[in-house]
Amino acid sequence: MKTSRSVIIVAGGSGKRMNSDVPKQFLLLNGKPILFYSLEAFHHFNPNIHIVLVLPESNFDLWKSLCKEYNFPIKHVLAKGGKTRFNSVKSGLKQIPHTELIAIHDGARPLISKENISVLFEDAEKYGNSVPSIPINESVRIFQEDENEIMDRSIICIIQTPQIFKSEDLKKAYQQSYEVRFTDDASVVETLGLKIHLSKGDPKNIKITRSPDLKIAEVLLNSH
Amino acid sequence: MKTSRSVIIVAGGSGKRMNSDVPKQFLLLNGKPILFYSLEAFHHFNPNIHIVLVLPESNFDLWKSLCKEYNFPIKHVLAKGGKTRFNSVKSGLKQIPHTELIAIHDGARPLISKENISVLFEDAEKYGNSVPSIPINESVRIFQEDENEIMDRSIICIIQTPQIFKSEDLKKAYQQSYEVRFTDDASVVETLGLKIHLSKGDPKNIKITRSPDLKIAEVLLNSH
Repeated sequence: MKTSRSVIIVAGGSGKRMNSDVPKQFLLLNGKPILFYSLEAFHHFNPNIHIVLVLPESNFDLWKSLCKEYNFPIKHVLAKGGKTRFNSVKSGLKQIPHTELIAIHDGARPLISKENISVLFEDAEKYGNSVPSIPINESVRIFQEDENEIMDRSIICIIQTPQIFKSEDLKKAYQQSYEVRFTDDASVVETLGLKIHLSKGDPKNIKITRSPDLKIAEVLLNSH
Repeated sequence: MKTSRSVIIVAGGSGKRMNSDVPKQFLLLNGKPILFYSLEAFHHFNPNIHIVLVLPESNFDLWKSLCKEYNFPIKHVLAKGGKTRFNSVKSGLKQIPHTELIAIHDGARPLISKENISVLFEDAEKYGNSVPSIPINESVRIFQEDENEIMDRSIICIIQTPQIFKSEDLKKAYQQSYEVRFTDDASVVETLGLKIHLSKGDPKNIKITRSPDLKIAEVLLNSH
């Protein structure tokens, strides 16, 4: 059977910046492991989506016991995380069946909504790919050595995930060697010479990085 | 008497983005008007600092009644806000006595700490000015017409307030006519040809703009 949509949820990070021994993706948000939210959002968007979850192999058992404890019902496949995000995505790609569009999502962004996922898949169908972006509301400066100057913030934007690409583009792009400038998937794919389509992101879709972010996510989860 | 340090706290905004009839600077944060926090932080940094608060003239009475209601003890001078932030700062400058260094701070940033204020004044003494900056932790893209590409986020930073300048530089810079690209005070001052010094900001020092920001500020206020 042909699966037309897949998602790779990347959760390779450690809990170092969260002052926690538990890797951040397993911390509880409103009483539920952070990672559950992303899997649920994609499943609610489309119950037939093929979900691959990339975790450090050392966390497989922890994850499986959490799924058991919470009776987590959503079907998914595990893939072993690599040393870098680039390697983790590469590993996830091996678990993807024949598919048209692949979304790649940070497991540390639990507040992704099914509405935003839906808009992004629609845009990816129309434009070949889609990447969620939000404006920057504060002043920005650009610096080089000891010079710096104001930068026009109206021509730059913050990029979030999920980022969605045609399967063949993504697989081809990930055959390259890793480079430091690959901070997300769009930066990997654009080296093929493809134009990246900027779609509408969601300011609520924050990345859980530092310690207060978890409580901030709770506030956002409960706000309208 | 010579006052060596002054601060202009700019609070000209309306409550439009906060879904509130009350201008955001008067909303309560942990039971206290948002604006009180900034005045307190500067006063605790240095009880002799000269504080000018810029408000829309239509809010003067509301402000005075809040100060009375809460027995707000910190001495300050009011200045009338203008149509733009640029005009509000200009109006505040008229209320500044002879002083060496002037800080300009957004009233919508209640979480400024006296420690950060202290670092910024020290840097301004050493380098002639100082502007708090924090790194960007997410991918950034730069766009023009329908092209866009990844931008190296390690050479840009987010700028906060307070921004501190020598009195004579600031007054001279504010004699110019307003331009759209003046999104903060550093952008006004650098047109004099002065080098801006980037100092360490504080990720907690967020700007209260949208509705959930108030609750996020509460979380940050109570976190360590």
